[in-house]
Amino acid sequence: MKKNLEKLFNPVTVAIVGASDKAGSVGNAITQNLLNLGFGGEVFLVNPKYKELLGKKCYTNLNEIEKEIDLAIVVIPAIFVNEIIKSAQRVKNFIVISAGFSEIGKDGRIKEFELLKIANKNNINILGPNCLGLIIPKLNLNASFASGMPASGGVSLISQSGALVVAMMDMAQKEQIKFSQIVSVGNKMQLGEVELMEYLAQDEDTKVIALYLEGIKDGQKFIEVAAKISQKKPIVVLKSGMSEKAQKAIASHTGSLAGSDEIMNAAFKKAGVLRVKNLEDFFALIKFLSNFKNDANQDCAIITNAGGPGVLATDSFGGKKIKLKEFSQEFKQKLKEFLPAESSVENPIDLLGDATQERYYRALELLEKEEVGNVICIMTAQDQTPTEKIAQVISEFHKKSQKNIIPVFIGGEKIEEAIKILEENNLPNFDFPNEAISALDKSLDKKEVFEVKKSLLKKIFGVKDRYIINDASEKNRKALLFGEAAKLMEKYSIPVINYVNLAPNQELNEKGLKFPLVLKVDSENVLHKTEKRGLVLGIKNIEELKKELIEMRNNFGEENLIIQPMLDHESELIVGLKRDAVFGPVVVFGLGGIYTEVFKMVDFLILPASKEEIKKGIQESKIGFIFAETRGKILCDINEITEFLFNFTTLVEEQEYIKEIDINPLLITKEGKLVAVDVKVIL
Amino acid sequence: MKKNLEKLFNPVTVAIVGASDKAGSVGNAITQNLLNLGFGGEVFLVNPKYKELLGKKCYTNLNEIEKEIDLAIVVIPAIFVNEIIKSAQRVKNFIVISAGFSEIGKDGRIKEFELLKIANKNNINILGPNCLGLIIPKLNLNASFASGMPASGGVSLISQSGALVVAMMDMAQKEQIKFSQIVSVGNKMQLGEVELMEYLAQDEDTKVIALYLEGIKDGQKFIEVAAKISQKKPIVVLKSGMSEKAQKAIASHTGSLAGSDEIMNAAFKKAGVLRVKNLEDFFALIKFLSNFKNDANQDCAIITNAGGPGVLATDSFGGKKIKLKEFSQEFKQKLKEFLPAESSVENPIDLLGDATQERYYRALELLEKEEVGNVICIMTAQDQTPTEKIAQVISEFHKKSQKNIIPVFIGGEKIEEAIKILEENNLPNFDFPNEAISALDKSLDKKEVFEVKKSLLKKIFGVKDRYIINDASEKNRKALLFGEAAKLMEKYSIPVINYVNLAPNQELNEKGLKFPLVLKVDSENVLHKTEKRGLVLGIKNIEELKKELIEMRNNFGEENLIIQPMLDHESELIVGLKRDAVFGPVVVFGLGGIYTEVFKMVDFLILPASKEEIKKGIQESKIGFIFAETRGKILCDINEITEFLFNFTTLVEEQEYIKEIDINPLLITKEGKLVAVDVKVIL
Repeated sequence: MKKNLEKLFNPVTVAIVGASDKAGSVGNAITQNLLNLGFGGEVFLVNPKYKELLGKKCYTNLNEIEKEIDLAIVVIPAIFVNEIIKSAQRVKNFIVISAGFSEIGKDGRIKEFELLKIANKNNINILGPNCLGLIIPKLNLNASFASGMPASGGVSLISQSGALVVAMMDMAQKEQIKFSQIVSVGNKMQLGEVELMEYLAQDEDTKVIALYLEGIKDGQKFIEVAAKISQKKPIVVLKSGMSEKAQKAIASHTGSLAGSDEIMNAAFKKAGVLRVKNLEDFFALIKFLSNFKNDANQDCAIITNAGGPGVLATDSFGGKKIKLKEFSQEFKQKLKEFLPAESSVENPIDLLGDATQERYYRALELLEKEEVGNVICIMTAQDQTPTEKIAQVISEFHKKSQKNIIPVFIGGEKIEEAIKILEENNLPNFDFPNEAISALDKSLDKKEVFEVKKSLLKKIFGVKDRYIINDASEKNRKALLFGEAAKLMEKYSIPVINYVNLAPNQELNEKGLKFPLVLKVDSENVLHKTEKRGLVLGIKNIEELKKELIEMRNNFGEENLIIQPMLDHESELIVGLKRDAVFGPVVVFGLGGIYTEVFKMVDFLILPASKEEIKKGIQESKIGFIFAETRGKILCDINEITEFLFNFTTLVEEQEYIKEIDINPLLITKEGKLVAVDVKVIL
Repeated sequence: MKKNLEKLFNPVTVAIVGASDKAGSVGNAITQNLLNLGFGGEVFLVNPKYKELLGKKCYTNLNEIEKEIDLAIVVIPAIFVNEIIKSAQRVKNFIVISAGFSEIGKDGRIKEFELLKIANKNNINILGPNCLGLIIPKLNLNASFASGMPASGGVSLISQSGALVVAMMDMAQKEQIKFSQIVSVGNKMQLGEVELMEYLAQDEDTKVIALYLEGIKDGQKFIEVAAKISQKKPIVVLKSGMSEKAQKAIASHTGSLAGSDEIMNAAFKKAGVLRVKNLEDFFALIKFLSNFKNDANQDCAIITNAGGPGVLATDSFGGKKIKLKEFSQEFKQKLKEFLPAESSVENPIDLLGDATQERYYRALELLEKEEVGNVICIMTAQDQTPTEKIAQVISEFHKKSQKNIIPVFIGGEKIEEAIKILEENNLPNFDFPNEAISALDKSLDKKEVFEVKKSLLKKIFGVKDRYIINDASEKNRKALLFGEAAKLMEKYSIPVINYVNLAPNQELNEKGLKFPLVLKVDSENVLHKTEKRGLVLGIKNIEELKKELIEMRNNFGEENLIIQPMLDHESELIVGLKRDAVFGPVVVFGLGGIYTEVFKMVDFLILPASKEEIKKGIQESKIGFIFAETRGKILCDINEITEFLFNFTTLVEEQEYIKEIDINPLLITKEGKLVAVDVKVIL
């Protein structure tokens, strides 16, 4: 349910419960921030210990204030918080700064659950608990205990770390990052990333949504909401915990290939969210998105007065979507007309070490008419370089151009004044070419987001049809037999290899057997068949088969045996289901074969997914090459695998009792057909 | 031949040929730099236009000066340079700033070649031409046209870009980089990276050698010299041109897998050189190596007053050699004794937002006794954080500790004063955790460098034995036939599959044939056999073979045919020779099979290489896993492949007329033996 957070983000009347004049206390820091940084609304101080505080009337409790309070900031010991909020009669929005809730363990969790119930019952919004607060520069409102007031602009920051908010505010000026809102979410009891993004989506001042997350509350909801917003406003995420050590024990092969961080990547991609991997990239991307036109053009030109840094910039394009534009002969001719003979008119354009603002101007003027969306202007302060004038020229173009005109001034003291000029023109400098090029490239990540109607999913196999697993359930088995799994796959039109099921003591019918064959035991106890000698490959004739049958019956007398043809094939794939704690069912697909674990060529589908999304996902995946034409040949049609995975996702969506599935190998036959050769289903 | 550069780097008498008082000219910039920045030696101005210049006597030419000149800086038009240098009687070292040599094309190349001849004949040293000059801070000598004088310290910078020198000098103060020498090498006519490294190796003031290179003059020599030095002093290289587009047409399969940049990586590794990939990493690594103890310890501890940045720092350890140390229970107990209950005593140690210098001190004091070589101290300026006192504490430990105590203060204005305190203590700050952790990790790259005696290489196949290729040479063939190639391999004990050679019209001898078999045509015109139907796999019996023989003789009547057994095998490898323009013969080895080009799992051996080096190279390669134990099994013994590659390198070293070789596939049989199945030799 979407929250009404209008007043929380636009308060006129604000109360501080726990206001204080005690230097060094959190209550005092917040009180000072609210009173002294220019907030235009009315501030009420609440603290039963005082009648007057800092020259202002001080109230005993919230209810004593006769006006409607748009926002109350609570900064009192945890034990008093719930009672105060419960009894407040004219307050709809709270920020609970106080710590001592779920973050401290069981007692805290109980307290937080109580508080959540109060919030729901009284229909109020609570940010926190255990948070730093909220800062809204355009209102000069600092309802937090971080000091200072950052510049007002288009970036809304949602942070799960208070300390990061402090550091970002401190860096913001240097990095030219200007904020519309800064929200510290603390324990995310009621207002988490999803609820806040929903508000920021329709907030006109918010141009870029930046999230620092340590966890995600509801993965499916996150994708749903973010996918809608990301098509209109860029969402940048810095998600920590990439190198998570803790992974639950996984029974299936595909499961073990799916790290939770890789699934996180797939989820962010599905949601159209731009993920960065560290703090410096976070800053750089926010800086880029909030200060430039940002029209997702893939072409880039570079002008430079320094050869070496130009060459190094070229290197930064390796393996990226952003491309160094190839100039036309005509354009190069025009450059030659005003540049010295030793200049380079290839991209990067080398204006030479003695370049003045004039050369920058003329190059930019010519580029203005070219079809290139991004121009990186590298400058180093060489002997006689008119750094400030060059900064002026670049600023001018930044203002009038529809392109991204991106300065990369490299140096220290000698470029300080020039950078100040850029700043005065709301143009941030990038310290190194690679910083700018990486941010530019990342900004192109925003992908097509597919709409998925849940109703798309056919329900062909309802609960009444669970008969296949009845036997397994009764016997408390943790996995289906191959025969059972094959039947289940067939229900969903998933092609499984032909097989003969041989019950214990059943006679072998020699008719119709085509060699070579595979003989294997069908038992939940023999999951790793090769290791326990329950699998014999390449049986060439009936004599060999009979010999192997005797041996296997000796070893596995009580079990069914399976006879399968040994298929000639072009390639081996692997497909599986894993259930992720955050995002629910995830389909894993990739390359099979003996080096599966070495190569880890797997990708992920987060559900639900339409056929269109699945197809695109395969084409962009690590095994996309298998379904593309190579030397006039296609191993397997893309629609074949799309259909296969779509059917598999339907199964996964419907059969909720299944924990994991492993189809390994899934062969691509010489005829380009897909055939599941072994299927493992874990209950 | 090692150059005597003693006087070039320690001049007492310096002359400027082309001294000038014309504002804005290069000659003036250099004159001003030499006269006004405190150089203690004697400076002579040379310019025939003046009798006196800037209040000093001005000479008509160098020979007019009666003293020995240790160093003459030449900054006159290119056309006069050679004559001036040729006629100079008492100068042994020159820096030629003047441009207009090989960089401008043919005329310039001729002029430069002439200059080189003069240098060799007169036994003089010339830095440049077309360079920025030389700066030696400890002498207050700036013999360049870059203004200013950086701080004196332990970094020697050799740069192939003058503009980069300018930018680095400008950034140096901020980044705490202090120089012993800064050398702009220009066209590297006579003094290139090798000659300069040789000098810097024995220069006591040089602690770190930093190179910015756009090319390497002599690859083999570079490796030889760098390998010796890197064991004593770290060598950091920023090599541009990674994304080189131009690759010559390559005939062999393995050749096409070997990009020149990957070969460069292999060469740098062989030389024990630390390669970084962009300017920011270059700065960070130089900063780390020149300011810290740098004892190559893999363990790292983190203390922080900010949770989020601590978690983010943890993420930076993913996939690196540097490890986040796991603390003992005992150690954690000691931390608990003084830290508040909510602190984290795991690594990273969270001192909490209200941490004072006291907590930093006590944590550092405890860590001092732990076995951990690196301590990263993260700080953000939160409410009440005593930033300067914390800086003081960290500086203290930096001085007395044997560990690397690395500050990462994150922020802007609020930490400025604290960073100044660090700087006063010669302690550079890292802006982000990842910056410090990456530099630390890179510093661990320095590997064992193997000594190779060239005499190791046996000469078993001299020029007199070239009979194998005689036929090919006579017929002007570009490649050997399979039979010829197989014979060549056998000479070097390289195991090739058994085969029957069937000349045109020769009868098939059915005896001894073991099915399944492979039939292929042996012709230099059918290099891509599968595409031209010159290869039939899996022939099951004599009838099939006869049928295929007829068909193939129809298609390739004039050619030899080859019959080989179809081997059962565990794995497919690929081995090849490529000749690199910079580093000479390079052996390429990696995984074969249908996805070779997709996976590009190849590594490189730069020659010469001892068996020991080859073995280590395989173990650390992408296919190292094949020769390691997995589930109690080894596919192939490491000594088997080592022996194979060693023999192959011997062949490569000796058979200089061979351009490329492709062994593809090289099978690992079920018995763990290596067998070359197809061998292509390009002449």
